[in-house]
Amino acid sequence: MIVNIPENSDFSIHNIPFGIFSTKDRNPRAGVAIGEHILDLAAVHSLGVFDFDIAVLNRNNLNDFIALGKSVTSKVRTDIQSWLQDDNSVLTGKPELFVKQSEAQMHMPVHVGDYTDFYSSIEHATNVGKMFRDPENALLPNWKHIPVGYHGRASSIIVSGQPIHRPKGQTLPKDSNTPVFGPSQRLDFELEMGFVVGKNTQMGDTVSTGEAEDHIFGLVLFNDWSARDIQKWEYVPLGPFLAKNFASSISPWIVTLEALEPFRVAGPKQEPKVLPYLEYDGQKNYDIHLEVGIIPEGSEETNVCQSNFKHMYWNMAQQLAHHTVNGCNVHIGDMMASGTISGKDEDSYGSMLELAWMGTKPLQMKDGTERKFINDGDTVSMRGYAQKDGIRVGFGEVSTKVMPAK
Amino acid sequence: MIVNIPENSDFSIHNIPFGIFSTKDRNPRAGVAIGEHILDLAAVHSLGVFDFDIAVLNRNNLNDFIALGKSVTSKVRTDIQSWLQDDNSVLTGKPELFVKQSEAQMHMPVHVGDYTDFYSSIEHATNVGKMFRDPENALLPNWKHIPVGYHGRASSIIVSGQPIHRPKGQTLPKDSNTPVFGPSQRLDFELEMGFVVGKNTQMGDTVSTGEAEDHIFGLVLFNDWSARDIQKWEYVPLGPFLAKNFASSISPWIVTLEALEPFRVAGPKQEPKVLPYLEYDGQKNYDIHLEVGIIPEGSEETNVCQSNFKHMYWNMAQQLAHHTVNGCNVHIGDMMASGTISGKDEDSYGSMLELAWMGTKPLQMKDGTERKFINDGDTVSMRGYAQKDGIRVGFGEVSTKVMPAK
Repeated sequence: MIVNIPENSDFSIHNIPFGIFSTKDRNPRAGVAIGEHILDLAAVHSLGVFDFDIAVLNRNNLNDFIALGKSVTSKVRTDIQSWLQDDNSVLTGKPELFVKQSEAQMHMPVHVGDYTDFYSSIEHATNVGKMFRDPENALLPNWKHIPVGYHGRASSIIVSGQPIHRPKGQTLPKDSNTPVFGPSQRLDFELEMGFVVGKNTQMGDTVSTGEAEDHIFGLVLFNDWSARDIQKWEYVPLGPFLAKNFASSISPWIVTLEALEPFRVAGPKQEPKVLPYLEYDGQKNYDIHLEVGIIPEGSEETNVCQSNFKHMYWNMAQQLAHHTVNGCNVHIGDMMASGTISGKDEDSYGSMLELAWMGTKPLQMKDGTERKFINDGDTVSMRGYAQKDGIRVGFGEVSTKVMPAK
Repeated sequence: MIVNIPENSDFSIHNIPFGIFSTKDRNPRAGVAIGEHILDLAAVHSLGVFDFDIAVLNRNNLNDFIALGKSVTSKVRTDIQSWLQDDNSVLTGKPELFVKQSEAQMHMPVHVGDYTDFYSSIEHATNVGKMFRDPENALLPNWKHIPVGYHGRASSIIVSGQPIHRPKGQTLPKDSNTPVFGPSQRLDFELEMGFVVGKNTQMGDTVSTGEAEDHIFGLVLFNDWSARDIQKWEYVPLGPFLAKNFASSISPWIVTLEALEPFRVAGPKQEPKVLPYLEYDGQKNYDIHLEVGIIPEGSEETNVCQSNFKHMYWNMAQQLAHHTVNGCNVHIGDMMASGTISGKDEDSYGSMLELAWMGTKPLQMKDGTERKFINDGDTVSMRGYAQKDGIRVGFGEVSTKVMPAK
């Protein structure tokens, strides 16, 4: 191997995820993560090994690179895998092609035109339904027929490492009819994964469940920040708005569907039967271990959640088929997030709302403090990886510090 | 006047709205509408009269032009007003600067990064609440405290003239628990106006009601197409999604806030008192007459609605202040629509849902047919203008034909 890859690295030879990085001396450009390094794709291109325009690698997003199509982007990935494992390849003896991740800054990997958030974990939807609506009828009648989703804010999607400020907004105090204004008292994370659309469609086009994976470039970890008190007061009848649009954070490396291929698993049985446009063949869920840690200011991390992407009731192919069945056009770089990924166990719930059950079961931090929601100064870190038969493909992390309200 | 302006033209000397047009021989570029002509701004720039980069006028959207700031864009508008009225100006004797609107194709005037739809007409919210929820408590408790809004789909906003296809989707038949799939049977328009954001903000920034108008470049007519049957089944609990995101249509000319200055009027009294961040000074509503016509295939137009933008309960300054109060960042070109603009009178309702009251009061067309909702082959045209003391400032129209489901 041309570059050293630590054991248990998320960025093994089997992964080769794409991202945008910059260094002190140079502007943002495309790279792939390998071990603790980044392979500079524009520098590799300069060796004359790729037959597409180098300009697509020197942009501050991957949209034009993705637009080359999977026949090109997949070959870049497999070529790099071959070269890295060949001691006499084009990459041999060229340390200048590699940048240490510790010396690089990561940027948003894509320009997100539109962002959609789904609500596809049955455990999360059930938990929220129990808390906010009727415990006896937690799931709404449409939930098992529709991969329920809504539009979110694209402008406030940020990359791991960028801090956020606690949002202010209107909330309705208990036993009052008059709202008050101030910093949210119930700031929460939502553990999600997001997929990046890899192909443009035109208005009127549909993407079937069979075609969907060809339209998905890859996945990132997604923290859909939520202000529960603002959400509760504002969300009827048109859905969440200011409770969500102040920030969403993503991990910087897009892990391709190809890299995740070994980790396919069957999804849950969908009963009642879904409408024909939502039927699908094969295994369309992915076994990706997910976890969340909270790091209080100046203290160590406490793991608060262990979940898995395989828990999703609705898979990505169904989400994209549903999104386009009315002819809605999607663009390269569009982000579609899963919704909070909760499992059956109480420690697998993907939000503080559920983990601390509306504040009734505070979580203990290692520093002795308690959390019902997220405090100022806390950093929330999400990590994810797939592992099987000695192969590990990971996402790194999305880590975001919460600053006090401005 | 250098160019003839027909009496009652929407595009009077007082207007000078901005848009993007193309001609057979040349690519999309910026222009202003004057009478039945377009003044080619890049061609005017070539005369050496503007001191900014001509490149911003040769793009297929106005975003970079708007980014020059109102000090520049307002002066372009007032300079053009002066030149057009001066028989010895830089524009004199240069017919090549003018293109007939009938010989031009209009394009989307801006690249829309994010699109937000508000719900700011009290009559519309009350009508919908009566129909879908509780007639005795039609307005939800938050409505008079929050300019309720939600995120829509930016990718499917199209310009007047582009036809749409009837969307397909899931609906729940009456007295059934099982949804069916097929073309929407309740396709509807929504008469709205949209404003175009004129300044970028950063995450964490807020825009006060006092600052808001400086952040608004101008307005367009906005038809927020809606599939009522899809909406009814999908919208709980996260809001409208596929019922809306198949298409929204806008008029091609952005009428500036400066042009609308003479038409300011007081808004309604807001009771109960709003929270301090939503308080405002001065007159922030605008008296803009609005109307909707339906043109059945091969037939003449029937006017079905006469409304007015002055009916809005929440004004644009309040909408933008609310949108940013949590630190949500907004970008130049972002579109924020008003929500359906209904007045008090039954013929001022801004949607078929309300005009034909859920299909119980069909509208008569001039060709003898009836409409409960919009039929295949129908063209829906919305027009709007402000008029006072001999001054007319209009929006032209947004006109969209509905094709059968694909």
